[in-house]
Amino acid sequence: MSEHPTDHAGLDILPFEVCLQLLASVPVGRVGFFADGEVVILPVNHVVDGQDLVFRTARGAKLSAAEGQDLVAFEADEYDEQTRSGWSVLVTGRAEVVYEEADVQRLSRRDLHPWASAVEDPFWIRIRATSVSGRQTPRPGLNR
Amino acid sequence: MSEHPTDHAGLDILPFEVCLQLLASVPVGRVGFFADGEVVILPVNHVVDGQDLVFRTARGAKLSAAEGQDLVAFEADEYDEQTRSGWSVLVTGRAEVVYEEADVQRLSRRDLHPWASAVEDPFWIRIRATSVSGRQTPRPGLNR
Repeated sequence: MSEHPTDHAGLDILPFEVCLQLLASVPVGRVGFFADGEVVILPVNHVVDGQDLVFRTARGAKLSAAEGQDLVAFEADEYDEQTRSGWSVLVTGRAEVVYEEADVQRLSRRDLHPWASAVEDPFWIRIRATSVSGRQTPRPGLNR
Repeated sequence: MSEHPTDHAGLDILPFEVCLQLLASVPVGRVGFFADGEVVILPVNHVVDGQDLVFRTARGAKLSAAEGQDLVAFEADEYDEQTRSGWSVLVTGRAEVVYEEADVQRLSRRDLHPWASAVEDPFWIRIRATSVSGRQTPRPGLNR
């Protein structure tokens, strides 16, 4: 028996708190947004700040999305090829540039390493989550 | 010196053939599409079939996107936390349901393991790539 409710694909539906813990447990997630008529998905190093996702970026498509306060998606997952087990969490929310100096300084003290260590991305983007949902494959070893 | 051209973030731009090789080297990628006014990103187990991405799904949002021949995105990446190095590949293309029985049988012989092993997803979705782009962090150990 699974301890969580399941979806139509037989995956366990994860509680909100577990989703946030899992998001915070991995160094990389992916931001998805609409740009020039296409869906774009780009990896970012993120941190969880309260219930928000925060990441750094340079001038470009991600910054444009945030300046427009676009509705964006953020996804993180882990998959173990040996056990074929994994989880994924999807966050939807509005992106915004962090302009407040106090916020920027506080976030800068977080241990956030850029994807490309050669460049220090100057802008912070916050995704204010409006929905958070997560799934995981049924846990192996349980009575099922 | 890097052997590849770089983008504005200092990342190496990967050639098309390398992008396809990297996509085929990982068991999981993520499909991004537009559904009910929101960007959705969901993980899938995929295979590379020629220059297309193919994955299985059940009835749901991914199937609806494919039935509408929507423009979708597919992303895969790998990140090594120790060396802070990684790569990502983004594919954009139109999704379509694979209906031809010969195609379905040929694809079924590929070693494609579903994300949720409890359920055998009945539908095959093909993404016909119209653009493929990839980036990687500058290789460590090179003269730079």
